[in-house]
Amino acid sequence: MHTLDVALGERAYPIHIGRGLLDDPALILGRLQAPRVAIVTNDRVGPLYLSRLQGALEGNGVRVDSVVLPDGEAYKDWQTLNLIFDALLGARCERSTTVIALGGGVVGDMAGFAAATYQRGVPFIQIPTTLLAQVDSSVGGKTAINHPLGKNMIGAFYQPRLVIADTATLDTLPERELKAGLAEVIKYGLIRDLPFFDWLEANIDSLLERDPAALAWAIERCCRNKAEVVAADETEKGERALLNLGHTFGHAIETALGYGTWLHGEAVAAGTVMAAELSRRLGWLHGAQVERVRTLLRRAGLPVSGPALGAERYLDLMAHDKKVEAGQLRLVLLKDIGAGVVSATADSADIAAAIEACSVR
Amino acid sequence: MHTLDVALGERAYPIHIGRGLLDDPALILGRLQAPRVAIVTNDRVGPLYLSRLQGALEGNGVRVDSVVLPDGEAYKDWQTLNLIFDALLGARCERSTTVIALGGGVVGDMAGFAAATYQRGVPFIQIPTTLLAQVDSSVGGKTAINHPLGKNMIGAFYQPRLVIADTATLDTLPERELKAGLAEVIKYGLIRDLPFFDWLEANIDSLLERDPAALAWAIERCCRNKAEVVAADETEKGERALLNLGHTFGHAIETALGYGTWLHGEAVAAGTVMAAELSRRLGWLHGAQVERVRTLLRRAGLPVSGPALGAERYLDLMAHDKKVEAGQLRLVLLKDIGAGVVSATADSADIAAAIEACSVR
Ligand SMILES: NC(=O)c1ccc[n+]([C@@H]2O[C@H](COP(=O)([O-])OP(=O)(O)OC[C@H]3O[C@@H](n4cnc5c(N)ncnc54)[C@H](O)[C@@H]3O)[C@@H](O)[C@H]2O)c1
Ligand SMILES: NC(=O)c1ccc[n+]([C@@H]2O[C@H](COP(=O)([O-])OP(=O)(O)OC[C@H]3O[C@@H](n4cnc5c(N)ncnc54)[C@H](O)[C@@H]3O)[C@@H](O)[C@H]2O)c1
Ligand SMILES: [Zn+2]
Ligand SMILES: [Zn+2]
Repeated sequence: MHTLDVALGERAYPIHIGRGLLDDPALILGRLQAPRVAIVTNDRVGPLYLSRLQGALEGNGVRVDSVVLPDGEAYKDWQTLNLIFDALLGARCERSTTVIALGGGVVGDMAGFAAATYQRGVPFIQIPTTLLAQVDSSVGGKTAINHPLGKNMIGAFYQPRLVIADTATLDTLPERELKAGLAEVIKYGLIRDLPFFDWLEANIDSLLERDPAALAWAIERCCRNKAEVVAADETEKGERALLNLGHTFGHAIETALGYGTWLHGEAVAAGTVMAAELSRRLGWLHGAQVERVRTLLRRAGLPVSGPALGAERYLDLMAHDKKVEAGQLRLVLLKDIGAGVVSATADSADIAAAIEACSVR
Repeated sequence: MHTLDVALGERAYPIHIGRGLLDDPALILGRLQAPRVAIVTNDRVGPLYLSRLQGALEGNGVRVDSVVLPDGEAYKDWQTLNLIFDALLGARCERSTTVIALGGGVVGDMAGFAAATYQRGVPFIQIPTTLLAQVDSSVGGKTAINHPLGKNMIGAFYQPRLVIADTATLDTLPERELKAGLAEVIKYGLIRDLPFFDWLEANIDSLLERDPAALAWAIERCCRNKAEVVAADETEKGERALLNLGHTFGHAIETALGYGTWLHGEAVAAGTVMAAELSRRLGWLHGAQVERVRTLLRRAGLPVSGPALGAERYLDLMAHDKKVEAGQLRLVLLKDIGAGVVSATADSADIAAAIEACSVR
């Protein structure tokens, strides 16, 4: 087991990474405010892991209630969030009850938002079970649900007390989801960790084969990057925005096609290529560097061009993004591989050209 | 104009109290992050004050969007909250857009919760227009909506950047609402300010006649008390809980009868008598002191006994309250007039007896 810390003063918390951690209730027990938890999961992950976690906790005198949500990004909405509140209130969960998210990023974001707002805030623990959630969404305290007009538009910054990444849970993860998670893994290399990008070029095949050592190493490296960024800029006033590389383009794809048609990571992959291409048009990247980005994403089994929505539609959807300031779109671009930057330099024509160059005709 | 400060470090903010402040946009202009606001109001307050506020701001180059909600506690729910999000997203409000609440406590609580969660948090200003909101709900950062199983169950702690209490807006307040606000005014005297309680006994008639000087003085005194309590205990780990005197009983009444049948302040008034009676049964107050409490509330035109729900039903509803810890109900009681205390001493039989003694048969 490896343990990292997210340095956030009195709200600091550990991330434990290792195989089989789900069977180690001691990690959780020491962090509970009262011997009572509510586990939020979904109807895919629940059947795989809920009873094991529940049993381990109950065996130690913890009262466990659970909420099983329908699976999928399409359910990351008010109606489904309310199922969590209904369950918490129905079971009379108190302010000292800890909410535990057991699942991927969707469960984590929703359970986190519920924990942030149930009785104005109850303790929260993340147990991420997808690669994407283990390397990204479970760390850093962003929680949210979607709105028909935009992704993650309603939410809160709310830190967990503990993150447990049991890498053994990735054994059951569908191939396509594993690949989607790699989009976020590659992101860290691109925005701030050139040595890691080099390592990924050498080891992408091992990751795709789910080599346990390679996966564990990559997860730890990503969490270390994420923890550093979050500690420096918890509420995204500055550096943290870099984590959105490819996301403004990607959210447009997700919103246009309806949540869940493209996976989040797939949309981010295509968006990352668009960001790289735009960086080239601004004179920041060479064509060969854009090719390096495209090649690694392609080798990871990810799309490297977006759907043919037309640049107009992309721009329109992107104007809804949270990164708009004074009507100006701020995008994460690359000054180099390993050097992301937030920029409002690009005008609509540049952006449109990059989108057209990187989407299916 | 009188100005008080809520001392919360980097989140400190001023409360301005005075007649006609609505016509002074300078108070607001200096506090905006960008020249753009979204005013949330309702279909009763909007027709009275929205165009004046909107005009004053637009005349100073501020872009103003507005959302007019249906009026009433019954609409303090998810569906209505979503109307705010729909409007903010429809108008493409950005992270730097300030949400302004113009109305009573319901509008303030809902607009505040929307501000806390729209794009994970945007700037927020309170312009309370009821006595209750001016003396209580607009100060201190509690925001929430109701759930069918309990009042204010979903929300956030989120401080405004500014509170403007224009006492002239109280001129149009219905009589019954004015009286309801007095329940919270009297509360401050009971929990921590005996000299103010004495003053209220002498001046309750002037307040009911809406004597401007008396009202202004009482509002300032209440805000000063509230600001002190909030600065000492922002997230209600301790002293702040005292502000809930009468509220656990009162919430049971509100939930049982359906939100809006009894006004919040009316329910709190009956609940306050129950708390005083329970304090007497525990040997903390004399009968004469309970009578003083009852008399002042009655003179303020407020109910001094609850509806005949039966003690069982009260206790059941109260068990849902946020003040439950480890299954134990914690109530705000009185050790003296001017000395509130949070206590888990009373057992169900005591509580039931106090409820029965103070409810209609
Ligand atoms: N909060 C943040 O900082 C942040 C960061 C990145 C992404 N996100 C959000 O995360 C979400 C995407 O997360 P995701 O990719 O984990 O999607 P997901 O939660 O939908 O999980 C993907 C699929 O895998 C299933 N699954 C999960 N764990 C499994 C396991 N161990 N075995 C078998 N199946 C399993 C899920 O049920 C789902 O069907 C998006 O909503 C995105 O907005 C949030
Ligand atoms: N956040 C907190 O700390 C806190 C504290 C106390 C109460 N509250 C909440 O506040 C709410 C009660 O607030 P309220 O008593 O202001 O109720 P309210 O907001 O419903 O207002 C009462 C009525 O007066 C109308 N009104 C408002 N201003 C008016 C004006 N100037 N002229 C004419 N009519 C006017 C309203 O439209 C409404 O019909 C409850 O939901 C309660 O839970 C919150
Ligand atoms: Zn992402
Ligand atoms: Zn109240």
